Amino acid sequence: MTALSTLPPDTARAVRAAREKVCALHAELTRWSLVTWTSGNISERVPGTDLIVIKPSGVTYEDLTPDSMVVCDLDGTPVEDGCSPSSDTDAHAYVYRHMPEVGGVVHTHSTYATAWAARGESIPCAITAMADEFGDDIPVGPFALIGGDDIGRGIVATLSGHRSPAVLMAQHGVFTVGKDAKSAVKAAVMCEDVARTVHLARQHGPVDRLAQEHIDALYDRYQNVYGQRKGTDS
Amino acid sequence: MTALSTLPPDTARAVRAAREKVCALHAELTRWSLVTWTSGNISERVPGTDLIVIKPSGVTYEDLTPDSMVVCDLDGTPVEDGCSPSSDTDAHAYVYRHMPEVGGVVHTHSTYATAWAARGESIPCAITAMADEFGDDIPVGPFALIGGDDIGRGIVATLSGHRSPAVLMAQHGVFTVGKDAKSAVKAAVMCEDVARTVHLARQHGPVDRLAQEHIDALYDRYQNVYGQRKGTDS
Amino acid sequence: MTALSTLPPDTARAVRAAREKVCALHAELTRWSLVTWTSGNISERVPGTDLIVIKPSGVTYEDLTPDSMVVCDLDGTPVEDGCSPSSDTDAHAYVYRHMPEVGGVVHTHSTYATAWAARGESIPCAITAMADEFGDDIPVGPFALIGGDDIGRGIVATLSGHRSPAVLMAQHGVFTVGKDAKSAVKAAVMCEDVARTVHLARQHGPVDRLAQEHIDALYDRYQNVYGQRKGTDS
Amino acid sequence: MTALSTLPPDTARAVRAAREKVCALHAELTRWSLVTWTSGNISERVPGTDLIVIKPSGVTYEDLTPDSMVVCDLDGTPVEDGCSPSSDTDAHAYVYRHMPEVGGVVHTHSTYATAWAARGESIPCAITAMADEFGDDIPVGPFALIGGDDIGRGIVATLSGHRSPAVLMAQHGVFTVGKDAKSAVKAAVMCEDVARTVHLARQHGPVDRLAQEHIDALYDRYQNVYGQRKGTDS
Repeated sequence: MTALSTLPPDTARAVRAAREKVCALHAELTRWSLVTWTSGNISERVPGTDLIVIKPSGVTYEDLTPDSMVVCDLDGTPVEDGCSPSSDTDAHAYVYRHMPEVGGVVHTHSTYATAWAARGESIPCAITAMADEFGDDIPVGPFALIGGDDIGRGIVATLSGHRSPAVLMAQHGVFTVGKDAKSAVKAAVMCEDVARTVHLARQHGPVDRLAQEHIDALYDRYQNVYGQRKGTDS
Repeated sequence: MTALSTLPPDTARAVRAAREKVCALHAELTRWSLVTWTSGNISERVPGTDLIVIKPSGVTYEDLTPDSMVVCDLDGTPVEDGCSPSSDTDAHAYVYRHMPEVGGVVHTHSTYATAWAARGESIPCAITAMADEFGDDIPVGPFALIGGDDIGRGIVATLSGHRSPAVLMAQHGVFTVGKDAKSAVKAAVMCEDVARTVHLARQHGPVDRLAQEHIDALYDRYQNVYGQRKGTDS
Repeated sequence: MTALSTLPPDTARAVRAAREKVCALHAELTRWSLVTWTSGNISERVPGTDLIVIKPSGVTYEDLTPDSMVVCDLDGTPVEDGCSPSSDTDAHAYVYRHMPEVGGVVHTHSTYATAWAARGESIPCAITAMADEFGDDIPVGPFALIGGDDIGRGIVATLSGHRSPAVLMAQHGVFTVGKDAKSAVKAAVMCEDVARTVHLARQHGPVDRLAQEHIDALYDRYQNVYGQRKGTDS
Repeated sequence: MTALSTLPPDTARAVRAAREKVCALHAELTRWSLVTWTSGNISERVPGTDLIVIKPSGVTYEDLTPDSMVVCDLDGTPVEDGCSPSSDTDAHAYVYRHMPEVGGVVHTHSTYATAWAARGESIPCAITAMADEFGDDIPVGPFALIGGDDIGRGIVATLSGHRSPAVLMAQHGVFTVGKDAKSAVKAAVMCEDVARTVHLARQHGPVDRLAQEHIDALYDRYQNVYGQRKGTDS
């Protein structure tokens, strides 16, 4: 077990910054009604390290503090004594080990997205907001039990080479990835939004997937032009 | 009628603590939108006594104070003058008399759970969050009129020997139990959450119950591993 | 036009109290999400007078003050210069003229209740909370245009001799009545709640009306036993 | 590029007022839950000028300030350095160029309205609130890609000569117009409200459009009588 107190000053500062950012971002999960009780969690890779910062297990959102965030290695093992990490840490850690481009991971059971997941049905790319953010249908991953690498493996197998930063794990919920935790949170927020809109749309008739060329054009523009600086999404 | 003022100091402190806890927990019912106007209530057994603390009847949630909570014996009779106890006190008291392991009871008419109850249909255990918390389908209890032991009897008959801490009383609403009031509140919150998700999931196609072995594995893990300390749920 | 400044002191105090109460109660309409923009309104009869106090027309809820409430006679005519009364004042006034037992009236376009109204379908008394508050199905009134007595006449014709304090005016919205404004607000809140629950319940199968004898028993008990004092509802 | 610092004092004051108003109105989009993350935007024509003020691109609602609002000419080009304007600016600008009576434009992906748009189905004028505000069905505009005049052209073609201030752009979302930004915001709020109500109404049976003469009467009255002063809507 690495003593965090012996980290180089730069790394210690990066860990501290990640604790604060990951803690604060959990407020977005409640603000956008993506979580119930303690059911969702966020993690972020500490830049330049093999460490991640993740929500502690079973702590309610209003009780979270930067210090209660748990620092783990890429096997998901806490590097110091303190709170237990989220019971989903194994899945997060697997994603970080196998998708080096990923800097943030979010897990929720958000209502509409989980309803699609409960049926094991992918969300068709039927509206422009979905083409912008996801660039494709939001895919379904396999059913997998918690407590090992099965969930992580299912996420990585489904998202590798896919434009979508979100996967619906069958009969379970949503995992999203991003270049950092904020991007992954945004994907989780937008996933629930489009899951709800397309769910409702289909209640009164069929909904067509957008033409592939339109999806491609929208995705390309949004990823490269939108926002205040090229390549950012905020 | 027992004069609370003559209780031993330890018991008086336990009553006071229960008043404060039960009062505060009602804020969770409004926060998670489980109640409308004055329609839900929470009680807790005072540890080491034959007393319970319960919401007063017909008082809105923002007007609740620890002192307005009503202390009753296990027959549901107030032990001092003051507010009338919830009109559901008979049902709570029956549960405490017949399920000694229960330390907290919650009653709501939360929307989606009550919609299942209105049809008299149990909620199939179709998503992992449901297996975690309920370990089975959420069962339906009988239709019963208020004003006697019928509701309490229906709750006890349905939940005895069942993993689920929640029962859908037919054409009425939800009762949940727990080792304390907080656990019962959590069950009420999660009951509405899974009731909503499975309701929505079925709107666009069939939803499969999880395999029994998966339900068993998830339930066992959640009850024994999740959270900061073995055996707690927060 | 009566000059309010020349009212006897007791009446002036009663008018002032009604202004404050009606103004404050509008916060319940937003709290329970019954209104959008400026779409709902509350009025109260000033006890012992032929005056009513009602929301001003087209003013948003956060801009309401006791002084902006409009005092009208029972023909709906303002008794002093100031804000224009709600465009629904004619309907409120008609109800007060023809139902002397009514002390408060509320009008909303709350979502689920208005959905039933759009189809012109009454809400079957299928859950106990509905039997408690409404004692019957919530009935549908006729389609009527604003700007005269047609709406008021439809309300009175539908609610006279009916237990329900709520009527769904066809393709329009909800009117509720009560012994005072607070009771009418409670009926409006509960109407939306049961409209939503029964709407959702029917999405996955038929919902049975409660047996008449059970409705009668529940209604009688709720109207006479519930709450802190016999005959109150709070 | 016009230097705003060289504007005549009156125009500079009008620009400042528009910045403050447009910034503040974005709070209505979040209050009425019309937007997710950064997905909606508001603009207003600066009275007496060929300038518009619009939301900056990709900035979250709580980070908006009057100074971050972007001033553009009627081609949608910013007139000074600073934040990039909304990626929907081209569409807004096209509307201002071709509909001189329009002083405000709002764009959202509000859930229920976008569900209708996803199917490409107009919302039938089935309830009185809809006749009041929209005077007709809410029409569907063509599918159009972002990044040019296609969206603006679709809006103008659909709304020109139509009573409705709202258009559902196919598989995209809602655009609304008004005499100023506040009116367009009100139309966006009411559009989502009626989209939701009619969506729900149709889930349990057919919903009839109001008779044309009733729509005409309601629309005429609401546009000319409602509110505190003739011709205003607040």
